[in-house]
Amino acid sequence: MNRRLFLYATGGLTLSPFAARAASQNAGATEAATGITQALARYIVSTKPADLPAPVRKEAARTLLNWVGCALGGSKHETVGIAIAAMSPFSGPAQAGILGRKERMDILNTALINGISSHVLDYDDTHSRNIVHPGGPVLSAILALAETRPVSGPDFVNALVIGVDVECRIGNSVYPKHYDTGWHITGTAGVFGSAAASGKLLGLTEQQMRWAIGLAATQPVGLQEMFGSMTKSFHPGRAAQNGLTAALLAAKNFTSSEQSLEAKYGWANVISAARDYNYITDGLGKTYEISKNTYKPFACGVVMHATIDGCIRLRNETKLKAEEVERIELKVHPLVMQLTSKKSPQTGLESKFSIFHAASVAFVEGGGGIEQFTDRAVRDKTIASLRDRVTVVIDSSLHEDQVRITLIANGGRRFEKFVEHAVGSLENPMSDKDLEAKFAGLAATVLPPDRQRWLMDMCWNVEGLPSVKAIADAARPV
Amino acid sequence: MNRRLFLYATGGLTLSPFAARAASQNAGATEAATGITQALARYIVSTKPADLPAPVRKEAARTLLNWVGCALGGSKHETVGIAIAAMSPFSGPAQAGILGRKERMDILNTALINGISSHVLDYDDTHSRNIVHPGGPVLSAILALAETRPVSGPDFVNALVIGVDVECRIGNSVYPKHYDTGWHITGTAGVFGSAAASGKLLGLTEQQMRWAIGLAATQPVGLQEMFGSMTKSFHPGRAAQNGLTAALLAAKNFTSSEQSLEAKYGWANVISAARDYNYITDGLGKTYEISKNTYKPFACGVVMHATIDGCIRLRNETKLKAEEVERIELKVHPLVMQLTSKKSPQTGLESKFSIFHAASVAFVEGGGGIEQFTDRAVRDKTIASLRDRVTVVIDSSLHEDQVRITLIANGGRRFEKFVEHAVGSLENPMSDKDLEAKFAGLAATVLPPDRQRWLMDMCWNVEGLPSVKAIADAARPV
Repeated sequence: MNRRLFLYATGGLTLSPFAARAASQNAGATEAATGITQALARYIVSTKPADLPAPVRKEAARTLLNWVGCALGGSKHETVGIAIAAMSPFSGPAQAGILGRKERMDILNTALINGISSHVLDYDDTHSRNIVHPGGPVLSAILALAETRPVSGPDFVNALVIGVDVECRIGNSVYPKHYDTGWHITGTAGVFGSAAASGKLLGLTEQQMRWAIGLAATQPVGLQEMFGSMTKSFHPGRAAQNGLTAALLAAKNFTSSEQSLEAKYGWANVISAARDYNYITDGLGKTYEISKNTYKPFACGVVMHATIDGCIRLRNETKLKAEEVERIELKVHPLVMQLTSKKSPQTGLESKFSIFHAASVAFVEGGGGIEQFTDRAVRDKTIASLRDRVTVVIDSSLHEDQVRITLIANGGRRFEKFVEHAVGSLENPMSDKDLEAKFAGLAATVLPPDRQRWLMDMCWNVEGLPSVKAIADAARPV
Repeated sequence: MNRRLFLYATGGLTLSPFAARAASQNAGATEAATGITQALARYIVSTKPADLPAPVRKEAARTLLNWVGCALGGSKHETVGIAIAAMSPFSGPAQAGILGRKERMDILNTALINGISSHVLDYDDTHSRNIVHPGGPVLSAILALAETRPVSGPDFVNALVIGVDVECRIGNSVYPKHYDTGWHITGTAGVFGSAAASGKLLGLTEQQMRWAIGLAATQPVGLQEMFGSMTKSFHPGRAAQNGLTAALLAAKNFTSSEQSLEAKYGWANVISAARDYNYITDGLGKTYEISKNTYKPFACGVVMHATIDGCIRLRNETKLKAEEVERIELKVHPLVMQLTSKKSPQTGLESKFSIFHAASVAFVEGGGGIEQFTDRAVRDKTIASLRDRVTVVIDSSLHEDQVRITLIANGGRRFEKFVEHAVGSLENPMSDKDLEAKFAGLAATVLPPDRQRWLMDMCWNVEGLPSVKAIADAARPV
């Protein structure tokens, strides 16, 4: 008999005997721990902007700039338009803006939609250990919230760092078993990031923060089965919305569990076959998970990134034109060909699954952005011709994100390029300039260049903003 | 390598190689099945009011009446007030009414709040096999929806029956393993009931219904850890809101998985350690899960129901007054004392965990409603005095919901009562008259008697209503 559950029931509601029976049945299958949720809540409410090291604050600005760019780039996507059309009749007051669009909705719906926009191109940030996409769930919530009250730059950065820290620490604690089961970890862990960051801006007490974490825990979002449909990008949006809802309820003293992460029938035990709470509590306030965030340089799956990176470098180093290239030989890990073996893609979408196209377009155009995976690029005669002269050899001694490229010029001259860590990896991160180029490519169809520049500068200098609402205002089309 | 996931990715988004790796890792742990979601979607979109047998339609009216009563009774609860205060600043237009209150909100928020109201007293309906509380997730969504468009009585009953059928069939397919893990099945299965019933009223095509089921699958709600806090009643409300959101998105062609229930990384495999899809598909359109719905006669945990039932019967049969009773002896299953052993409760809430109070108050007042578990009842001298004369003996040969009562009158005369199936069980269901008495007790503080009568008559005759909106209108305080 589970005595704890009985005592719990005195908190306000009667307890079904079924719950007690269920409780006693699987008691052996879970891990005992205490104080995890409390420690995390205490960390969230006590961390001050001045506590954050400069490199951490810098990474927050990079995360912000990358996220704004991705949301602008995705803002015209059909998925976003449908979601707005479906939700608008039920939206509250026009409290916050959809990035890159003229629509304004209540902050909960805005969090949902901006979260969808920022993920719909699969171009957003990725935590290098647990593959959470950290920006979407957190920033979609707190930028909307910052439109309803003055939030200073330092407070905003603090909330962003804490939110990413919370969601990625929790993600780490159950990765990879939780992911292997079939959960989309960006939605299931992301909801905590949104709740923590939103709750921080709302000024929750430690008690309220524990409730907010409980309300987040009970609303996980996302099955991997949704990959390949619009519902995939729904996940970070809904995680942002659910976490914000959790914080808003807790702020009014809507009670919840106070040990939702570690309790026997709490989040980690219920949702994952294995868990290690040390990932949540070790080094709290000393190490920051946002330092392990990475940004995609190219608008396609990461297995093609090394090839694109290498072909751009060969283009720049050899100064050859496509017509002067006899052929390009790629040596890649088997997974690359399993995922991206389309020899002759017919559409922009198909080209995202063609390592042949990736090599060719990168060499011809010197990039791998949205524009390089369009119908236009696929049909371009120069790109199509060089694509036919790309060959691939499987080499299982290589890592999945590596490539060995041999370019043979007309006349037989050979150029070699080995890419050990593609640009965008943690070992070879995108530079600030790379991030700006990516931003400009994404924002091009939505904002004029001067507005892009203004917005980028605001992201870099976010800590100097008296009210972060200015970023949302600047991201509105003129 | 999971080929299916790769092909899936051509549906619109790139596929992370991590997903493919995760997919291949746990392929052996899941069960293969096909066509489950499709069969369910086809059943939902094709079922017509004329297909439903009369007893099924009658049970739908009972489910409706019980749910309206519970929502009225819970409508003044602190939990409901906090939720309204937290969500109101973000609510859309005043499209639908909160039962028993004057507030009106958009239909998504209304679904949330009415779902909370109807569960907050732990007095709502219970499916006799899988302990889902079926009414809340379904009715909270479709009654709100019925305020935005004309929904006839027969269409409403059809949607209710289908919604309960869908959530309880899906609940059956994973019960009890899913529940034993720690999920609150009313939230995790309930979201499907809301999506199905809402989608039916929205006229979704079979294709759209499969997407709605997918969008529901990816938004499960509820950990048992939340029991004892306000978040427990949040679960059916959020399930109603999430399911309605799923249907509204699908109606605009927001795409999702088309085999979300049975896919390798779909709902049943991810969320439960075991599953039997036959519970979902066997007898579709021939048997209806709403026929297994039960209604609580007493406002406390079901382990005390047999004792209350038996003491009321002894009161009525012996006509004795409390002062004429020397003592009452109860023989009960050990679980009853594990859960409800408070000898001298001091508050109304504590009295819900006192089998001694239950026996006494049932004998003295002839009931076990909300009023019998208040501070007033606990402090009543006659009730407190008789409570001290109740004794309990453990008898593990009895079932958990049985009791053997011996009443010894002053002078030594003995009366015996064995309750094999308490009133409210499937074997001994509440009569229509019982349900009316329960409704009146719940509605008493919100609506005058003539309004209660009008509302009950509308529930009984729901199939005759040209627009079911009339029920929501009548449930508004004058």
